[in-house]
Amino acid sequence: MWILRLNMSDRTYRLEEVPEAYKNLGGRGMTSTIVHDEVPPLCHALGPNNKLVFAPGIVTGTAAPTSARISVGAKSPLTGGIKESNAGSPWPQYLAWMQIKALVVEGQPKEKGKYWTAYLTWDAGAGKPKVEFFPADRYKGQDLYEVYPKVFKRFGKSVAIAGFGVAAEYGYANSGIVFNDLAKRPSRYSGRGGLGAVMASKGLKFIVLDSQGAPKVSIIDKTVFDQGAKKLADALLTHDVTKPKGGLNTYGTAVLINILNEAGGLPTRNFSTGRFEGAAKIAGEAIFEGNKKRLGKELYNHACSPGCIIQCSNTWYKPDGSEHTSCVEYESDWALGADCGIDNLDDIAEMVRLCNAYGLDTIETGTTLAVAMDAGVIPFGDSKKAIRLVKEMGKGTPLGRILGGGTEFTGKAYGLSHVPTVKGQSMPAYEPRAVKGIGITYATTTMGADHTAGYTIAPEIMSVGGKVDPLSPEGKAALSRAFQATTAFIDSSGHCLFIAFAILDIPSGYEGMVQECNGVLGTHWEPDDVVKIGSEILRKERAFNEAAGIGKERDRVPEFMKFEPLPPHNQVFDVPDSVLDSVYGEL
Amino acid sequence: MWILRLNMSDRTYRLEEVPEAYKNLGGRGMTSTIVHDEVPPLCHALGPNNKLVFAPGIVTGTAAPTSARISVGAKSPLTGGIKESNAGSPWPQYLAWMQIKALVVEGQPKEKGKYWTAYLTWDAGAGKPKVEFFPADRYKGQDLYEVYPKVFKRFGKSVAIAGFGVAAEYGYANSGIVFNDLAKRPSRYSGRGGLGAVMASKGLKFIVLDSQGAPKVSIIDKTVFDQGAKKLADALLTHDVTKPKGGLNTYGTAVLINILNEAGGLPTRNFSTGRFEGAAKIAGEAIFEGNKKRLGKELYNHACSPGCIIQCSNTWYKPDGSEHTSCVEYESDWALGADCGIDNLDDIAEMVRLCNAYGLDTIETGTTLAVAMDAGVIPFGDSKKAIRLVKEMGKGTPLGRILGGGTEFTGKAYGLSHVPTVKGQSMPAYEPRAVKGIGITYATTTMGADHTAGYTIAPEIMSVGGKVDPLSPEGKAALSRAFQATTAFIDSSGHCLFIAFAILDIPSGYEGMVQECNGVLGTHWEPDDVVKIGSEILRKERAFNEAAGIGKERDRVPEFMKFEPLPPHNQVFDVPDSVLDSVYGEL
Repeated sequence: MWILRLNMSDRTYRLEEVPEAYKNLGGRGMTSTIVHDEVPPLCHALGPNNKLVFAPGIVTGTAAPTSARISVGAKSPLTGGIKESNAGSPWPQYLAWMQIKALVVEGQPKEKGKYWTAYLTWDAGAGKPKVEFFPADRYKGQDLYEVYPKVFKRFGKSVAIAGFGVAAEYGYANSGIVFNDLAKRPSRYSGRGGLGAVMASKGLKFIVLDSQGAPKVSIIDKTVFDQGAKKLADALLTHDVTKPKGGLNTYGTAVLINILNEAGGLPTRNFSTGRFEGAAKIAGEAIFEGNKKRLGKELYNHACSPGCIIQCSNTWYKPDGSEHTSCVEYESDWALGADCGIDNLDDIAEMVRLCNAYGLDTIETGTTLAVAMDAGVIPFGDSKKAIRLVKEMGKGTPLGRILGGGTEFTGKAYGLSHVPTVKGQSMPAYEPRAVKGIGITYATTTMGADHTAGYTIAPEIMSVGGKVDPLSPEGKAALSRAFQATTAFIDSSGHCLFIAFAILDIPSGYEGMVQECNGVLGTHWEPDDVVKIGSEILRKERAFNEAAGIGKERDRVPEFMKFEPLPPHNQVFDVPDSVLDSVYGEL
Repeated sequence: MWILRLNMSDRTYRLEEVPEAYKNLGGRGMTSTIVHDEVPPLCHALGPNNKLVFAPGIVTGTAAPTSARISVGAKSPLTGGIKESNAGSPWPQYLAWMQIKALVVEGQPKEKGKYWTAYLTWDAGAGKPKVEFFPADRYKGQDLYEVYPKVFKRFGKSVAIAGFGVAAEYGYANSGIVFNDLAKRPSRYSGRGGLGAVMASKGLKFIVLDSQGAPKVSIIDKTVFDQGAKKLADALLTHDVTKPKGGLNTYGTAVLINILNEAGGLPTRNFSTGRFEGAAKIAGEAIFEGNKKRLGKELYNHACSPGCIIQCSNTWYKPDGSEHTSCVEYESDWALGADCGIDNLDDIAEMVRLCNAYGLDTIETGTTLAVAMDAGVIPFGDSKKAIRLVKEMGKGTPLGRILGGGTEFTGKAYGLSHVPTVKGQSMPAYEPRAVKGIGITYATTTMGADHTAGYTIAPEIMSVGGKVDPLSPEGKAALSRAFQATTAFIDSSGHCLFIAFAILDIPSGYEGMVQECNGVLGTHWEPDDVVKIGSEILRKERAFNEAAGIGKERDRVPEFMKFEPLPPHNQVFDVPDSVLDSVYGEL
């Protein structure tokens, strides 16, 4: 098993045996450990001393269900702190099959704006991976829907591609790293935190993996692994949210639109109310029914990555039945929809398509448009003008650069104080004033406002893993802490976070996840170890942030949420600072 | 003696007796104490909970020489920390004459973008100041050179005006508060840190003072005061730098251009070298000779504010002998000149004029243009295009908003890592890699990069107050600490910092400054108390910053200065972090 280091200062590479201390790490545990151990916390995120780390999860590349996730880590140009953002794609499987536990991109070329492709293949003779660098300048400045087919053509159909779009070329703090999906579309994103700009600053336009001939993933205890994988698969196949033709497979993640709207927690028009009158028109149900009408048949969702049971990724079709875009997630749908006061699914889908084409995070893009609307740049609800703003981002005009800088950046450009961010990253689709636990997660996670970092929505809204009152702050610090630690484990295992819906309700599924890891690693972890192992990762992330100057004073929601009551519940965010401080204080 | 509070939420005011604990405070000591005591450190700088504090110095309004300074304090939208920025003008004298020790602007109107004038007069009958509010929307969106005459016309020739320009109306983090000079021009700035945007966020376009009939400043011990004022005046009249027809009076502050260039510490082309080949063409000597040629006579400089002996403020004249702009300071000249690779004095003066017209800080504007040049927006040295960029700022276009956000903001918009800022504020005209002490001040002061916060240039470059090697870091932490504390006292006394040139070399002048304060306040401070009193102020500022999330990790120069050697000395900034931490650690 290798750590592969690409030095972009001179385009050389080095293979290192995975050190003993890193042997049981994977995914987020691996990226955060390497960033913590090797990146100077006060370095410039786009300078030569930042490092960009890719790590497949512990079980990624095996038959473990819903586990083809890649974690990408670095110091974030958006938050100034540590970042891990993960995505599902065939790409991490290939990396894992080549026995690479971590790919670390270091240095940067002296000459700015020159790009290269790193082409990784398996050298069967030497029994290890091999890297070649090819000039990639010809792919600059192009739409990713145009450029991905060219790269597939150049390197063959059996490769997988990681790259970035023009958003990252421009250096936007809102720029993701994109991986191809199963249909080879550039649609699966490590979107948050500006990791695309970090990759671009290193002059590394694409990482192309061809794993043919590679030995795949070694499993130390096949019996234990198989038991675990079966338990997890059974749980996923059983739970109403995750099973085939269940909530996610039918309506996609946008099934949450109506649910959050009902709960008064769907942030609308730049977080000024928790209910959107157009919610039903953009909800998952509307996507399902809309496609049915246009295609003349019921369409269930597809997997974003190999081996997924949940299969929540949708495609939206045009009136003529041709494909418009994949995928209209809940977060994208909400950010570019409700938060902008937009209720037109075709226009939302078009903005998602443009974000994929340019390499933008859809959440940060939508919340940024909403702030621009609040500042009077365009009116709330004007989807045609919103599309034009996204196109400005694609062109790199001054207005595009303001918006490309993200939500907080745009708020600053227009002198706004009503800006929904934490640690520089915009809030996702749950209102802290209406759902207190997720507000605690937003405020305290090492990642900047991030729902995936401790998804208390499960018990607060969906009655998954228990049921608690969303409006009450009682007990929510402990809840958020437990969810954050568990999540850090899941993000390390290589599973999609959505397995949580099933395993929180079905204990054998939870056991299965742990057993899978034990099978691969030869460890003897118990389910009770999950929080402990996850906490260890959080502590490293926190230490990095503190050394980067991001301490507990930054564990706060924006001030306006403390004095502006949110309709319809007319609540403010009333969690005391001492409670917020207890989340990591008592970790 | 009063603290006057203007509540802009409902346009009411309240007069409070100065509390006992605040009686000996003035200027920066007063603004920083009120900000520390009353402003929530985590509030949004442009939200309703920030407060904007104006305080004349302890001796301001008396016959103390060179003491008509106004300190303005708030939480800064540029740095996110505490800010004090002071200026010389008749305005603070009028405030002091009305017995106002501090004017605190609080709240903000519900309706955004509506502006008001606060008109302060002395109510002789009641024996106290009076405030009236008038609508000021008609003055929006205008050049300050046009608008100031209108306000003088409206309120009479005997008033003094504080206000802001379009830069603040747009919410730029680079926007100052402007005070009229003796010729009633809008040219004296509390420029740094975005205080203009704070004032604009409160809907308070102008504060107009008419002090007719006011009782002036009470002096408790007239004898001691007079002794002190004489000693200080003697020192200022004697020292080569501060005396009439001395360095500053003849060549202005731009006398430093050649000196710093010679020392290899004149930051050039976005801090990429310490020498500018065009230095002589923009130096103070060139200004003096240029005016002489155009006017046919030698022109010495004038006072920016009443009662100044030093008189360093210049006016630059056009080829036809008509006035172009006042004043071309060293910092403005350097920022818009050397740092942009521009050697054309007329074009530099035009940019200074535009900055005054729009209400922009010239330092932040110049360093921002230099970063934009480094990003390829326009070429280095192209002064005509640079003027066009400043005009974009005046128009509030998207490009103008990027630049108006300041140097760090512009660096982010273009994905640059070579950006010379500390705590979000751009570095002034001394290169940390060539002058280590000032680098320590930039890194550690509570203000963000700021030469005036601890001007070690005096001993490092000018052999004033001793002589030390600029390239050596030895002993510089203690030097910076002592200068920072002394400066906090001087900024509280109401004197211009430039008295330091004289009083560092002439002990009786230093005594005189302290005696003046004793005379006004009835205190018995000794010269040795200066550092103690100043340190007290620094500790409050530091405490505010730490509570705002700005701790010692932010006491650093930008990373590139640690690994990019600066010609001609080819040095990096080699001061260890532990030494930087000792500055406030041992305060």
